Amino acid sequence: MTDLSGLSAREAVGEIARGKLSALEYATALLKRTQEIDGEIKAFIHFDPEHVLMQAERLDEQRLSGRPLGPLHGVPVAIKDIFDTADYPTENGWGAHAGRRPRRDAEAVRRLREAGAIIFGKTVTTEVAYFNPGATRNPHDLSRTPGGSSSGSAAAVAAGMVPLALGSQTNGSVIRPASFCGVVGVKPSHGTISRAGVLLLSKKLDHVGVFARGVDDAAMLLDVLAGHDPEDSDTRIHAARGFAATAAGEPPLPPKLAFVRTQRWDRADPSTQKAFEELATSLGDHVEEVELPDYFATAWDDHRAIMAPDMAHRFGAAVDASGEASSKQLHELIAQGRGYSAERYLGALGNVQRMRASLAGLFERYYAVLTPATTGPAPKGMPTGDPVFNSIWTMTGQPCVTLPLLSHDDMPVGVQLVGAFGDDARLLRTANWLTQHVAPKKRKKARR
Amino acid sequence: MTDLSGLSAREAVGEIARGKLSALEYATALLKRTQEIDGEIKAFIHFDPEHVLMQAERLDEQRLSGRPLGPLHGVPVAIKDIFDTADYPTENGWGAHAGRRPRRDAEAVRRLREAGAIIFGKTVTTEVAYFNPGATRNPHDLSRTPGGSSSGSAAAVAAGMVPLALGSQTNGSVIRPASFCGVVGVKPSHGTISRAGVLLLSKKLDHVGVFARGVDDAAMLLDVLAGHDPEDSDTRIHAARGFAATAAGEPPLPPKLAFVRTQRWDRADPSTQKAFEELATSLGDHVEEVELPDYFATAWDDHRAIMAPDMAHRFGAAVDASGEASSKQLHELIAQGRGYSAERYLGALGNVQRMRASLAGLFERYYAVLTPATTGPAPKGMPTGDPVFNSIWTMTGQPCVTLPLLSHDDMPVGVQLVGAFGDDARLLRTANWLTQHVAPKKRKKARR
Repeated sequence: MTDLSGLSAREAVGEIARGKLSALEYATALLKRTQEIDGEIKAFIHFDPEHVLMQAERLDEQRLSGRPLGPLHGVPVAIKDIFDTADYPTENGWGAHAGRRPRRDAEAVRRLREAGAIIFGKTVTTEVAYFNPGATRNPHDLSRTPGGSSSGSAAAVAAGMVPLALGSQTNGSVIRPASFCGVVGVKPSHGTISRAGVLLLSKKLDHVGVFARGVDDAAMLLDVLAGHDPEDSDTRIHAARGFAATAAGEPPLPPKLAFVRTQRWDRADPSTQKAFEELATSLGDHVEEVELPDYFATAWDDHRAIMAPDMAHRFGAAVDASGEASSKQLHELIAQGRGYSAERYLGALGNVQRMRASLAGLFERYYAVLTPATTGPAPKGMPTGDPVFNSIWTMTGQPCVTLPLLSHDDMPVGVQLVGAFGDDARLLRTANWLTQHVAPKKRKKARR
Repeated sequence: MTDLSGLSAREAVGEIARGKLSALEYATALLKRTQEIDGEIKAFIHFDPEHVLMQAERLDEQRLSGRPLGPLHGVPVAIKDIFDTADYPTENGWGAHAGRRPRRDAEAVRRLREAGAIIFGKTVTTEVAYFNPGATRNPHDLSRTPGGSSSGSAAAVAAGMVPLALGSQTNGSVIRPASFCGVVGVKPSHGTISRAGVLLLSKKLDHVGVFARGVDDAAMLLDVLAGHDPEDSDTRIHAARGFAATAAGEPPLPPKLAFVRTQRWDRADPSTQKAFEELATSLGDHVEEVELPDYFATAWDDHRAIMAPDMAHRFGAAVDASGEASSKQLHELIAQGRGYSAERYLGALGNVQRMRASLAGLFERYYAVLTPATTGPAPKGMPTGDPVFNSIWTMTGQPCVTLPLLSHDDMPVGVQLVGAFGDDARLLRTANWLTQHVAPKKRKKARR
């Protein structure tokens, strides 16, 4: 049974489709593992084993009846608790939303069900996917943070409770917990996955992202989730997705990566600085160091100048009314957001356009940017960590992936690759290429 | 010759295509008229008769060579001086841009050339299409304003110098001068016509619009101008335009109009109030009075809370640097725009979404809203008039048309029809229907 928790989603789908494994057996194994370890890790906030078994039984009946199977038939997926679900509460990690029960699934959840996935449970998020942490601990070391805001989703995948999970990123909320927990995290290009039915912090900044233990699994999940949705006007119309098919191929030319330190390199741990410099050197001709133009220096302030007013606009009145049901940090963010002028807000949006245009030029010359995912391994205690290596790429909407290729202090450290806007499939292919190049030397097993 | 200045664009295109009129004869007649009267009216700021004749000669050569003709072959069009033109300066009515010479045509101008139109000259605009008036006078009474900001375009069409002109509207800058000058003005749905190469005041509020002496001519011009442009991300993709074909048809059902006074009815002149009440009554079963929900009362403040910060963002530094080359009003607007908070700005955008949703419901029940275009006839002197009956519809992006169906004090007064978002063709058909219903009683001839 234990082995089943190590299956990739792709393997599981294959076994189930061939009748070698039933959805019920697979779900039962993952339930058992979750019940054994989640008392300590605390990845899930809403979790109903009977409901999981019922979904699995129904999927097995469907298979036995000869009806066609979806691309995720029988695969349990964990859902960050800011995605509306019709069968589980959705509390957004927020005291003010305690007991909230949406009537409809978020579009991303609806697509999962349609693809035959099992909605396994809802995972812990920081308060309104912002700062104040939930109860989840890092599966590699319970005294450390799993990172946030998608804390439970990253931890559940890392600990083998599920092979796949949904998260969201407004600053670093997918890439950072994935790096801290030693899994693959993907934040696709802005507008790739619908945010309808997901707690909205900032239309410009919010992204749906995914967690998996390998790039191919993440690509398979993106194939199910990506697409236009009239309910989210930022979603783009894709002629074809084909993330998994492209990711599995060989790059037609030897990839060229741009090693980017950013203007905040000093915020990286010395061990992280050293590891990335060694990694860049070890990749030889595949890597050139590139400096971002000076005007990227405002990026972090610009990010704040967009996010804080957007959140004050969305949540201001509700946070005021919630009193002590909201954290001090959230009250402070709202107050800060209210202090921004419209001119500063619009100036920040203008700066983002300029940065995006500059990056478009960069990605004509390089397959991807190579840069840290986090400042280092997960810190001790529960602060969810620093998103300093995420803000630029989130704000400009680039696709990002973090790969668990490094480690320090026996803790995983992610390597982030950032791609050209809209070219997510090629980025995943480059990620597979890098994994194959680096893996023999550095790959570590996650604790499970 | 004089008669030619009264031709509709549609008539002119037909005569030229059939070889009964050459582009050169037509242009020569319009040049003559312009040279006779524009010394008083001052519609044009940049105007080069030789360049006009050269364009006309080239178009005649093209016709004689048997090459296919564009839908506006040989028709002179006047261009508001905030549209970039490669052959004329583009000064945006602004001292700070005196002598500015763009290298490329605006997309709308490019489409006109491609359609065979003659770029006749550049028309007077208020300073940066905002408030401070230019030199143009109302052709119906030289002591009165033509309205703004598209002052010269409206006056040129009203006075028979050209059959068609381009303008723009951020608040009331097409509908108001069209009403004051007694011509048809159309501000299509937001995103119908590209604004690439047009002075940008506010991405949310700016629209390209058109002037003509009849609805069919305006529709013909829209057919040329409408379309997706990657350079203006707000433009929509149209499967088919067919404004002219639809506008020329009969409504399938008797049109139902909603007579809307708005929360600012008291700003209309008593004569305008009376004329609209009589018009609504005279249309009998075709008209029902509809009150907008209470929350539309913030619309005018919301419009300001979007426009002023957007303009402070776009022009702030340049206005500061321009010193006395910018008017006091423009300096004041920038200062005011800088005083808005991001929260108020975002709140205003949120209110607009709510109003737009409410109007979508209204237009399921009515073909169009019937409402004043302006508070009354053009006032004496040069203040460009009050956009109070324009702000709501501009902000929500509805298509608007004004029809020269009323008069007071021997001056024209426009009747505005507002349509469902994206359903501009049906609105123009309703406008034709209304013109036919009202014309026998009220239609007046513009002075020419």
